[in-house]
Formats: sequence, C-alpha cells, structure tokens
Amino acid sequence: MPLPAFKTSLRVTWADTDAAQAVHYSNYFRFFERAEEEFYRQLGFSFADTAKKGLWFPRVEAFCQYKRPARFNDLLEVEVSVENLKERSFKLGFRIINEETNVTLATGYIVIIAADKQTGKATRVPSEIVEKLKSFCE
Amino acid sequence: MPLPAFKTSLRVTWADTDAAQAVHYSNYFRFFERAEEEFYRQLGFSFADTAKKGLWFPRVEAFCQYKRPARFNDLLEVEVSVENLKERSFKLGFRIINEETNVTLATGYIVIIAADKQTGKATRVPSEIVEKLKSFCE
Amino acid sequence: MPLPAFKTSLRVTWADTDAAQAVHYSNYFRFFERAEEEFYRQLGFSFADTAKKGLWFPRVEAFCQYKRPARFNDLLEVEVSVENLKERSFKLGFRIINEETNVTLATGYIVIIAADKQTGKATRVPSEIVEKLKSFCE
Amino acid sequence: MPLPAFKTSLRVTWADTDAAQAVHYSNYFRFFERAEEEFYRQLGFSFADTAKKGLWFPRVEAFCQYKRPARFNDLLEVEVSVENLKERSFKLGFRIINEETNVTLATGYIVIIAADKQTGKATRVPSEIVEKLKSFCE
Repeated sequence: MPLPAFKTSLRVTWADTDAAQAVHYSNYFRFFERAEEEFYRQLGFSFADTAKKGLWFPRVEAFCQYKRPARFNDLLEVEVSVENLKERSFKLGFRIINEETNVTLATGYIVIIAADKQTGKATRVPSEIVEKLKSFCE
Repeated sequence: MPLPAFKTSLRVTWADTDAAQAVHYSNYFRFFERAEEEFYRQLGFSFADTAKKGLWFPRVEAFCQYKRPARFNDLLEVEVSVENLKERSFKLGFRIINEETNVTLATGYIVIIAADKQTGKATRVPSEIVEKLKSFCE
Repeated sequence: MPLPAFKTSLRVTWADTDAAQAVHYSNYFRFFERAEEEFYRQLGFSFADTAKKGLWFPRVEAFCQYKRPARFNDLLEVEVSVENLKERSFKLGFRIINEETNVTLATGYIVIIAADKQTGKATRVPSEIVEKLKSFCE
Repeated sequence: MPLPAFKTSLRVTWADTDAAQAVHYSNYFRFFERAEEEFYRQLGFSFADTAKKGLWFPRVEAFCQYKRPARFNDLLEVEVSVENLKERSFKLGFRIINEETNVTLATGYIVIIAADKQTGKATRVPSEIVEKLKSFCE
C-alpha cells in the first residue's frame, strides 16, 4: 500500500457493534467512508459540492479484509491512500488500526467513478480533483 | 390504542443487534418505518409517489417504550394503528410483538406532517390519503 | 430543560442520510447515544465497564422531536442534560444544534434503567454513578 | 458463478437509502447477510445455534461490485451460491437482482471462517455444516 495520504480517528459507538460484541462487518465500510469524507474535506471539497455541480461519486467496487475485531469504545485510526487514478475513476485504499495497541484490524479499498447525476453515466473526474489526488500517488 | 389498521412480520437480522445481544434501540424505529411503508403500500401509495408530487412526510415526533428485548432470529409482528388525523399531520401507533411467544416487546408512535418539498413548510395531507387513513380511526 | 451537563460535536456522514437528503429519523437516537457515551467517558466509566460488573443500561423510553432537518456534512453539537434521577433509572435530555447556524434541530430524551445482566431485572443504579450524575441535577 | 444454492426476496426500505437516493453501498453487505441467514435457516441452523456451541462465523473478506443502483421500494432478489469450501473457511457468492426488471444490480462474496468463541482462533467448520454446504458445490 502506498503511503497514507490522510489519517483520521474515530471512536467505536454502541450502534456499530453486533451480537458478536464486535463491529458489524458492514460498518467498516462506513468507517472507510467517514475517512474518505474527512480526506475530501481537507482537500477542500465534499460530496455535497460535487452533487451541486451535477456529479455523483458512486462506488463500483468495495473490498475489506478483516484481521482482528474492533470493539465498543475502541479508538480507531483510519488511513486513506490513493491507490490508482484513471480518467473516470479512482481507487482509495484504507487501513484501520487500533490506536491503543497499534494493531491493524482491517484493510480494504473502494473504487469510485465520477457519474453524471442526470444520465447516471461515467464521466471524467473533474481536473481540480485529479490534481489534488495526483500528489498522493507518487 | 385503537385496533390495528395493519400488521406485518419481520425477522431480526444480525445487523439489527448490538453488543448487548439485543436489537439496538434505534432499530425499533426502523421496524416501525418498515411497517409504515408496507401499510402505505397496501393502501396504494408510497413515499416515492408522494415525493414525485412534491411532498415529503417528515417525522416531527417519535417515541418508543421498550418492554422486552428483541433478539437475533426473532420473528416479530409489527402492528400499525392510526391514532390521530389532523389537517396537516397524523399520528401512527405501533406495537411490536414476538410472534412465537405473543409477548409485546415495544410500543410507540410517530407524528408525521405533510411538507412541501421546495419550501419545507407544512401543508395539507392530500385528501386521497386522508380518506384512506380516516377509515381506520373510528 | 436543565443546563447541559455535557456537550460534544459530531459531523453528519453520508451513511446517516436518507433519500430525503436529510438525516434519517432513527439516526438522531444514535447521535444521542454517541453523546451519552462521551458523557460517561468524561465521567470516567463506559457501558463496557458496567457490563463487566454484570450490569446493562437498557433504554426503556426514547423520544425525539424533530424541528429542522440535519443534512450531510453539517457539524452538530449534541447537548446532554440529566433530567431525572431515581433509584433504578435516570432520564437524560438531549438537544441537537447546528453548530454553524446555532439553530436547534431536535430535542429528546431517553430513560435508562440499570438491569442485572443475568436476570434482566431492574436493579439499583450503582452509587458511584448516582453521585456523578447528581451533581448535574440541581 | 455456480448455480445459486438459495434465493430470497427483500424490499428496499427508506432507511437503506442515502442522499444519492439509492441504497447506501454498505447496505448491500447487510442484504448479503440477510440472504445468508435465510439460507442457513433453510439448512436448519443459525448463528444463534452455533454461538451456543461456542462457535462464531466471522467474515474475513467481503467484496461487492456495484452495477446499477437499488432504489427505495425496489423488490430485490438475492441469490446465494457456495463458491468454495475449505476445512476452516468457506466462501459464499451473492447476486442481487431487481425482481421487476430482472437486471443484476450487484454481485459479491464473503469469506467466512469458523472461530472458537473463547480463543478467537480459526477452527474446523462443523461436519454437519460442511455436509450441507457440500451438496451445493458440485
């Protein structure tokens, strides 16, 4: 995995857990997304801005490998890296680490396309976003 | 509580539970909503239809009293009753019963207003919906 | 409502929203809970600690009044107040405010009982917790 | 993908959607899980039973490819297939289809291990479960 482009922290809340007393497997994807949103916020844009310009960023692939359970009250660090950058899509990598123990709990990625809100069709990732993401790819 | 206007069944899934090995308290409101949606579907309309006509049905109040925990794999019956019907709002009552034991797990209600999608202001509940709901109020 | 005992901030994430492009009504209860957890953490205990001692804190009532929609990317302040303190239960009040506009979006409460993990029966709220909560009730 | 071992239907509820007015990407994994649970129920066991015997079935990998959005009110068919069966793990494949249009919306898989509840270590999948799953692998 390339060097992380961004890191953020989040705390596991009770609603994240399931009856196995660990974070439900679907919620790691929500953790990825919260880190993704913070990353964009730091880069100076948000889903809300791009939606106003007629663009969605739907996910076309999502993957997670679970290594150790995250539990209620755990403080997690989520690392984001830019793994791939194409004309109409990009791939973000994620790593979730237990901040106290420094153990990696999960790694994964999402592949995102730029899509026209009206037609739903894939379109170019706006150049100002490409420029910002590119600096993390080397 | 008035006689139920509608009943539906649902199964507790793993993602509904939390680390107390019971359904997370917020999810009872999602169960209410699934019953509400099925109720509307039986009456012949949906949130999607009314949204197309420029109407939302936001909740202005939500209440739940929890009596017994619902657990993974439980088959639940959700009863819906029409508790109050005003010009711009209505109140639906809910009861969640464990179908196997017939024990009441939770009761609650939501108060819903009709709101114009553009302005966000309260507006009249459409008369065709009022007519349908009225028959359950006597 | 009494003076807030505690305040915390949280950011609305994409997964909190629904197709009305506002936070789903059930998620305000999750926001209440995140604030509740942070409040306990500041007081020096957590659900995880009390669970180890054989105690759950199930909710027996939950209420929310929705005034204005919270939207994606909004930074929210959640205020917690201790509204009532009984031998076997207590009531926490909540207020959710849009931090940028200072507008109140929602208010609500939860009533919590202390329950023995084995028997499920209501029991005394531990005195060290009562002492901590009492200071916010005057 | 092998022939589906099991099929089930589910309805998209309002809480499944996000502000893009489509099902949130994390919720497809919850749909997979609901189908998985129904599949096990048909085979005659549940997470609850195996948990009583000291076994969890944590996911070690999860993947989803998103082709078309699922929307509020859509009736979905979820197909489950048994893609791989090892001593300590197995892989289930999923396909989500819009029942009305017959269009495939998403495909994916999860890899599940059998784990001892006490130690958290991988262990053999119980032979009665292996036997049941094996019949779908040919």
